[in-house]
Amino acid sequence: MQKSIEIVLSPLLLPLVDLKGKAVVVIDILRATSTICAALHNGASSVTPVLSVDEALQYDKSKYLVAGERNGQKAEGFDFGNSPNEYTPELVQGRKLVLTTTNGTKCILASREADEILVGSFFNLARLSEYLSDREKSVVLFCSGWKNRVNLEDTLFAGYLAQSLSETHTWESDEVELALDLVAKAQYDPIEYLTKASHAQRFARLGNDQDLRTCLQFDRHPVVVKYRGGELIAR
Amino acid sequence: MQKSIEIVLSPLLLPLVDLKGKAVVVIDILRATSTICAALHNGASSVTPVLSVDEALQYDKSKYLVAGERNGQKAEGFDFGNSPNEYTPELVQGRKLVLTTTNGTKCILASREADEILVGSFFNLARLSEYLSDREKSVVLFCSGWKNRVNLEDTLFAGYLAQSLSETHTWESDEVELALDLVAKAQYDPIEYLTKASHAQRFARLGNDQDLRTCLQFDRHPVVVKYRGGELIAR
Repeated sequence: MQKSIEIVLSPLLLPLVDLKGKAVVVIDILRATSTICAALHNGASSVTPVLSVDEALQYDKSKYLVAGERNGQKAEGFDFGNSPNEYTPELVQGRKLVLTTTNGTKCILASREADEILVGSFFNLARLSEYLSDREKSVVLFCSGWKNRVNLEDTLFAGYLAQSLSETHTWESDEVELALDLVAKAQYDPIEYLTKASHAQRFARLGNDQDLRTCLQFDRHPVVVKYRGGELIAR
Repeated sequence: MQKSIEIVLSPLLLPLVDLKGKAVVVIDILRATSTICAALHNGASSVTPVLSVDEALQYDKSKYLVAGERNGQKAEGFDFGNSPNEYTPELVQGRKLVLTTTNGTKCILASREADEILVGSFFNLARLSEYLSDREKSVVLFCSGWKNRVNLEDTLFAGYLAQSLSETHTWESDEVELALDLVAKAQYDPIEYLTKASHAQRFARLGNDQDLRTCLQFDRHPVVVKYRGGELIAR
């Protein structure tokens, strides 16, 4: 079959795309989907994404670790914030997590029509790409953005993933062309690209520098993450 | 005052931006805003943008030339289609036009909250940039896209305009960064960029090659176009 790639650059653009029968990859590089890959690769048994802080706090704390942020800060009463560096094997091995984040969680829940929901980040790029190449499905790369705005790091990552699927998938999409042009500009150094002079001010605004650089590392947590029965699990 | 630049990449993203007190530049390179600049620079006295073919046909044909397209084709009963090459001085000098197009007209009408609505295309880039530099206003560059999807030529043009305003305006916007990265890739040759190997198939789908190349020419029709009292006029 002919397998296609589409990119959704903002949650507000999701209605333009038909998700039925497709695999959707939710992307929120800073930092929900990076965090999810880190937690599951480091041994967490599941991550349950929920929409609100209140909903997260209703989970039984003897069974769940509660994690997440609001506007980039760790929410009150939570065990973890949204930095992937916090989710060490020592702390998460064998544990179930509940996660609420500003953008990424909403996108996972908004993708329910898709045949399959996956999670993408620089951490699992090669592994995810290998998985998608082998599947007989068209893919939609869904960038969470920031408060519905298009953002650079999610778009850039979608470009890397599209590039790595270019042998098995085709596209007729300006969004894909545009994302690939960002990749051509960034080459294989997203950190250099996102911290270079013209983008430096923006990067500084986003917070903890070390944390951000961590999220731009390729293949640090090679895991395929799927949403199933309300939970994200390592496949 | 601090003057800012924002870019709206699709009509669906317009609600994220506050237009009040700002100058909005509507961009529909292929081909509404290119056509509007050509018609007004070639002497048309006004262009009235309307939403539907039916509405356009209700204008008195002894007073108005009726122009426009639906899905890229000249609409039935119309005097002109949507190719800027049709709007010669011989045909439009001193005439009033009514124009309906798929994407651009909708965006002009959707921008009514702005303090000032202008029309941008490669044809009037330098003239428009000069005008905006001198105004004490923040600007919103509003890309019409294609059926609410993000498109390459509108985004690229927004990048050129942002670049030319970078001495007088500032931004905190990933959309602006992204558009500037496309400009850095295209350099000063949008035709080469949009017809190069990776984009050639897309370009061929858009229709008449000569027509498309015309719309990518810098400063062919140096005119400032404003929307006032329901009409677009040369300022």
